[in-house]
Amino acid sequence: MSLFITFEGIEGSGKSTQIPLLAQKLRDLHHPVIVTREPGGCPLADRIRRLLLCPDQEPMAPEAELMLYMAARAQHMREVILPALVKNIIVLCDRFSDATTAYQGIARGLDTAFIENINRFVTSGRRPDLTLLFDLPAEEGLRRSRRRNQDCGIETDRLERESLDFHRRVREGYLRLAAGDPERFRTLDASLPVAAVSAAVAAAVLPFLS
Amino acid sequence: MSLFITFEGIEGSGKSTQIPLLAQKLRDLHHPVIVTREPGGCPLADRIRRLLLCPDQEPMAPEAELMLYMAARAQHMREVILPALVKNIIVLCDRFSDATTAYQGIARGLDTAFIENINRFVTSGRRPDLTLLFDLPAEEGLRRSRRRNQDCGIETDRLERESLDFHRRVREGYLRLAAGDPERFRTLDASLPVAAVSAAVAAAVLPFLS
Repeated sequence: MSLFITFEGIEGSGKSTQIPLLAQKLRDLHHPVIVTREPGGCPLADRIRRLLLCPDQEPMAPEAELMLYMAARAQHMREVILPALVKNIIVLCDRFSDATTAYQGIARGLDTAFIENINRFVTSGRRPDLTLLFDLPAEEGLRRSRRRNQDCGIETDRLERESLDFHRRVREGYLRLAAGDPERFRTLDASLPVAAVSAAVAAAVLPFLS
Repeated sequence: MSLFITFEGIEGSGKSTQIPLLAQKLRDLHHPVIVTREPGGCPLADRIRRLLLCPDQEPMAPEAELMLYMAARAQHMREVILPALVKNIIVLCDRFSDATTAYQGIARGLDTAFIENINRFVTSGRRPDLTLLFDLPAEEGLRRSRRRNQDCGIETDRLERESLDFHRRVREGYLRLAAGDPERFRTLDASLPVAAVSAAVAAAVLPFLS
């Protein structure tokens, strides 16, 4: 059984808390699982990630940013995701092609049809079987994300320094994508406590495990 | 006067010898000139260049390679080429969008119409005013390129290690592009001595300087 699940949502929406919880549940049910993330997931894509998220470089052209995300995705898809799916390993991926459409397309204003065209090219047309959208207000997400970074002594990276307006547009973008593809998307209320979100994640995933 | 000239050709075709000769001639005529190259030409694009040409990394997916070239071009265009053209500085660029169509498209087999679509996006639709194609047989180009690298103690990079067949396809690709756009392209016989090629370059460029 090949199953490819992606996790989408704005900063602070709780994806990185929920993904390991789901991975553990799946392993307890004896399903082989890998957990990966974008941008990154393999050495070349990790190097691209550092270019993308490094806060102290020259202003990045939006077209360059888009192409770097796509380059990382192409390598990640070929080197990690497709080989795992062929071996019937469940792939849990923190952000994927919808993130590019929401951030670079809807929120930054690049042509979304063009982005989807490139997404098809770099993913060899393999779409996620299920996409979990962790939805919460941008204010709440940014508050959580800043608190976490301060707690860990992590510097706020380039994307997290974007304005609240930008994150609101990303959230609206994600909701629009989910509304346009209800077969694939499940939208979860990410402002609920961790245990409640975790139960909602499990309920969304279980029907795919047969 | 805004003038954007690109130099195309396979490895060892003599572009990097001819570009500084032309730059000096233009400066002697009191034209402001910048010389740049792809992939590279600005800090982010230079970092991408290192990812592309480093020989000891994991096998690169062709889609990832294409997207990295496009990312470097997008940044180079926005940060270097367009600002120079706005200031009426003549831009001499060693390889540009035709290289991607010839190498990744025609020689490696990716969809050339798709590549041209992305090229338009990352260049904001600004095409070179003149493209000089340095044409010579692939065998001769590779022989020259290997000799130069040995002389300089440079390790043969990833692209130069590609097979002779690949470089033949690149040459044919360039010739096909030149035939399809005779207004923009001038094809020069790069197997001639340096002085003869240099005279041909000057003859091709002079009509644009008025």
